[in-house]
Amino acid sequence: MSDNTVFVGNKPVMNYVLAVVTQFNQGAEEVSVKARGKAISRAVDTTEIAMNRFLENVTKSEIITSTEIVDTESGKTNVSSIEITLSKI
Amino acid sequence: MSDNTVFVGNKPVMNYVLAVVTQFNQGAEEVSVKARGKAISRAVDTTEIAMNRFLENVTKSEIITSTEIVDTESGKTNVSSIEITLSKI
Repeated sequence: MSDNTVFVGNKPVMNYVLAVVTQFNQGAEEVSVKARGKAISRAVDTTEIAMNRFLENVTKSEIITSTEIVDTESGKTNVSSIEITLSKI
Repeated sequence: MSDNTVFVGNKPVMNYVLAVVTQFNQGAEEVSVKARGKAISRAVDTTEIAMNRFLENVTKSEIITSTEIVDTESGKTNVSSIEITLSKI
């Protein structure tokens, strides 16, 4: 796992875009954007907006989808997750 | 683009899982699962459920995210999209 990880949740997408851009501006070579469940769409939005509007010389180096097992009040449940890694070229 | 494409929208996820599994059972070597906007999360669910519960010897061969420009009543807008390609091993 990258040290520079942005977990995408239910806040407005620009919050996460700003977090990603800030990490690159602070010198990160690589930033991972992670999300689970319904936030997966917002994670894709985050990387698309960050790359199209704010970042230059950054590419999507890896996209992984997986299933995580999460404990809830009503027992264990499966939830899909995504990890999109952005890297400086 | 693969001939065998499943477009994921707002129906229950099992509809799309069934569509993917059916295409493989009918002999497809490769099935692409595509979605836009909020349906992206459901596309990931579709491939995870299909692979974990129904399909053997199938792997995620490619995941692409991109931005598409869509015409709406109020003009053009950007929407994120995903394409997950499943292939027989």
